[in-house]
Amino acid sequence: MTTAEPIELSLALDRAAGRRYPLGQQLVDELRRRVQAGSLGPGERLPPVRGLAARLNVTPETVAGAYKRLVEEGYLRGEIGRGTFVAAPPLHAEEDPLAPFEAAGALPPFASQQPTPGPPANRDLLRLASQPGLVSFAASVAALDLAPVEPLRRALSDVLAKDGAKALQVGAAQGYQPLRAAIAGILREQRGLDVDESTVCVTSGCQQGIDLAAKVFVAAGDVVLVEQPSFLGALEAFRARGARVIGVPIEGDGLRVEARPKLLYCMPTYQNPTGRSLSVEKRRALLRIAASHDLPIVEDDSAGFIHLDGDGLAPPSLKAEDHAGYVLHLGTFSKLIAAGLRLGWLVADPPVFEKLVAAKYASDLSSDALVQRAVHRLVVDGALDVHLEHARTAYRERRNALVSALQQISSSGVTFDVPEGGFNLWLELPRDGPSSTELFLEAVRRGVAFVPGPFFFSAGRDGPASSAALRGLRLSYSAVAPPDIERGVHLLSDALRGITEAARPAEPLVY
Amino acid sequence: MTTAEPIELSLALDRAAGRRYPLGQQLVDELRRRVQAGSLGPGERLPPVRGLAARLNVTPETVAGAYKRLVEEGYLRGEIGRGTFVAAPPLHAEEDPLAPFEAAGALPPFASQQPTPGPPANRDLLRLASQPGLVSFAASVAALDLAPVEPLRRALSDVLAKDGAKALQVGAAQGYQPLRAAIAGILREQRGLDVDESTVCVTSGCQQGIDLAAKVFVAAGDVVLVEQPSFLGALEAFRARGARVIGVPIEGDGLRVEARPKLLYCMPTYQNPTGRSLSVEKRRALLRIAASHDLPIVEDDSAGFIHLDGDGLAPPSLKAEDHAGYVLHLGTFSKLIAAGLRLGWLVADPPVFEKLVAAKYASDLSSDALVQRAVHRLVVDGALDVHLEHARTAYRERRNALVSALQQISSSGVTFDVPEGGFNLWLELPRDGPSSTELFLEAVRRGVAFVPGPFFFSAGRDGPASSAALRGLRLSYSAVAPPDIERGVHLLSDALRGITEAARPAEPLVY
Repeated sequence: MTTAEPIELSLALDRAAGRRYPLGQQLVDELRRRVQAGSLGPGERLPPVRGLAARLNVTPETVAGAYKRLVEEGYLRGEIGRGTFVAAPPLHAEEDPLAPFEAAGALPPFASQQPTPGPPANRDLLRLASQPGLVSFAASVAALDLAPVEPLRRALSDVLAKDGAKALQVGAAQGYQPLRAAIAGILREQRGLDVDESTVCVTSGCQQGIDLAAKVFVAAGDVVLVEQPSFLGALEAFRARGARVIGVPIEGDGLRVEARPKLLYCMPTYQNPTGRSLSVEKRRALLRIAASHDLPIVEDDSAGFIHLDGDGLAPPSLKAEDHAGYVLHLGTFSKLIAAGLRLGWLVADPPVFEKLVAAKYASDLSSDALVQRAVHRLVVDGALDVHLEHARTAYRERRNALVSALQQISSSGVTFDVPEGGFNLWLELPRDGPSSTELFLEAVRRGVAFVPGPFFFSAGRDGPASSAALRGLRLSYSAVAPPDIERGVHLLSDALRGITEAARPAEPLVY
Repeated sequence: MTTAEPIELSLALDRAAGRRYPLGQQLVDELRRRVQAGSLGPGERLPPVRGLAARLNVTPETVAGAYKRLVEEGYLRGEIGRGTFVAAPPLHAEEDPLAPFEAAGALPPFASQQPTPGPPANRDLLRLASQPGLVSFAASVAALDLAPVEPLRRALSDVLAKDGAKALQVGAAQGYQPLRAAIAGILREQRGLDVDESTVCVTSGCQQGIDLAAKVFVAAGDVVLVEQPSFLGALEAFRARGARVIGVPIEGDGLRVEARPKLLYCMPTYQNPTGRSLSVEKRRALLRIAASHDLPIVEDDSAGFIHLDGDGLAPPSLKAEDHAGYVLHLGTFSKLIAAGLRLGWLVADPPVFEKLVAAKYASDLSSDALVQRAVHRLVVDGALDVHLEHARTAYRERRNALVSALQQISSSGVTFDVPEGGFNLWLELPRDGPSSTELFLEAVRRGVAFVPGPFFFSAGRDGPASSAALRGLRLSYSAVAPPDIERGVHLLSDALRGITEAARPAEPLVY
């Protein structure tokens, strides 16, 4: 492998900006911008530190510091003795549902008082998963190939034809009343919730529900408990609020943390990333813990409609058994229709509900009026039900294809539970094999991607460096067609075998 | 006027809830819910305190406390010697763009550490403005009767037909790249901004831009400076963050506040509520203040496209002259298309931009993908321009109708500036006349509504009780047809004359 010549960097720093915008920061920003914009391409070699420093008339420390920062952020990589290179292909966010994590993750924390847990692994890793042509198990999203495009197009068109400009009128912060009533209806029918629209608030996706809970319950420095592993978006929202996010196993005795927690976030049904559900006993234990610790619980029920087995429904939501008002229940149409549709809901009891609505109002006034009406129509005319039946059948096939392909490679020592719902399967690698991060690098090289375990782990007992984190990985099957699933698992198996054999003591090669 | 019999209140409190949900709170929540739901109607008389207390088996203090709280919140009103009554008609949020303020304003503060400025006036007042049949100058919104319903319907339909499920794919937190480029284009052409899409982030309306600025710059207890008077939604967003919001006149010497401010929020062009614009000199002074105090400025430019006079454009944005990166620039399609469309943008320089994008991600991942594509299409195919030309013409007619009607009543002592853009005109009442709040009550009785001055004023120099606040009021003309404008001004004039004459020392009536 030859080393490329360093590129010419035509750069001008603004010396007049002075202390306000230091030269080193300018250099960091400009180089980052160029990598993001693609004008510095992956693999390109940057000028040596001293040469660039001389040309820009800054100290070598300034240039070295800028390079170091961009290496930490994942934009550049250093190779000992060879120089500094552009690390990754530029982001194509539209192609990669994980890209938003990148946008957030590559950045410095913005609340200076917040204790900053470092990213659980080099986030640059995940960017590799955006390469075209990969079989990607990385995206835990509703399948785009199943999306009800035509019903949605019809609903939007009908709403505008029938309601005209009224469909574009801004409404109350808590949302379009008929949609709230329709949400209450499907929660009563399918999630065991005894609610009407008076305690349902429309949100811009489940993520906004989490953010509103953080706004109402959490101040900088407060402790938030999460399952270990947990949903990445929730970890980001709580960290952005300056919270100390601590992962705990959700058991009867699982809440012994050094500081009094302000909130507990969990996904009791078809959890992301593990696909597991809490038993009835654990749910009741959780409600007892809430009462005895006076601890509000955020129930993320975004997978609660994606039951794949039996004729019945998913286990009833945690909120269904919450008679004391401790549970804030969240869900989203993003998982039911398509991820780009930013429309979800929260359910909470009166004193808290009103605080959440006030926070929603201060956040963005209300969710999009037209989309609320169109989705309302999909719910009430039955199109959502029809779509969901169809989608569940497809997800079941995909889940089955994944399970059956994994069973074929089980001799390689991987283990997993069969998920009964949702979009994800949690795989555990053999104890004596590579870590999930090591496997990831080899897997991407061979054409298959997933999300390695450490990304889902927080500080606390069994953190990102624990055996559970290092051996675990998430395979999301929802958005992958069955033939690709089979191919992907074979590539994964090859990667696992390849890396395991490579790690063995060298033997004489006879071929 | 006879006093109605008290109603029968069939109520059951949950005694088992105990300390978790005190009986008094239950009573407050239940009564509030019934007023909101309309099962307790305006004017209905509540049972006397002692009777209800006996029947519910609680202390009279519990009932009295609940009534008192609901009176403060504006749901009930007490009349000395007559009893307690339901105060206002139930909210019909869909009909009243101000209703979201109610939802937020009627609530207890949710950040306990926040110093809570009380509402600047009884918010129940504004609820009166939602009565049907009023000529309402209360809503500062894009006119629904002008909304480009058909172009939007076509755009949505075309996007779904052409892009299919891709239009429903979740994108990067900063937004759909072609839309960001299109926004940069219109900002370059019409707002004097030298930007490309790399520093444009799509937001869910201008309100979310304000909320993101609060998240990035402001902690509980920090001082935020605002113009006096200022935009109600901004005041709510900063207060929700726990900020101390202080109103200052924006002058060269206007920043002498006791604590170092963290942020300044202003609307330099066609300000809401006054309709005024800052002069070039004041804009430059503001930028010098930013530099010397190291103070970030949030420029709300949401009216910057609504210029009504001359052949040219609005004054260039403040951001256009900001070469040091102090200005965070906000705008929104809500004012250009319709208020229910929750889509706006922010522009900021690199170090801050990335923090704002991270905050956007943690807030709601991204804005709705489909709406972003549809609005992108409206921009690039020229439909937005065509609509804006048409809308500006209509707004000009409405502004002119308002000004000409007001000139006819100028003998009553009211004064105003003619706004050169935006949706609002600020009227000042004569010094010796009624306050704008007094006038409001009389005006609503006679069939015309507006927003009284104190709603727009914060703590600080010239607060809600200042002469400027009490004498001022906002007339929003954008959403009122010219004949209604003329009728509304006459009603207003009648109300002013009526209240002024009633206030004079009684004279013998000869008619």
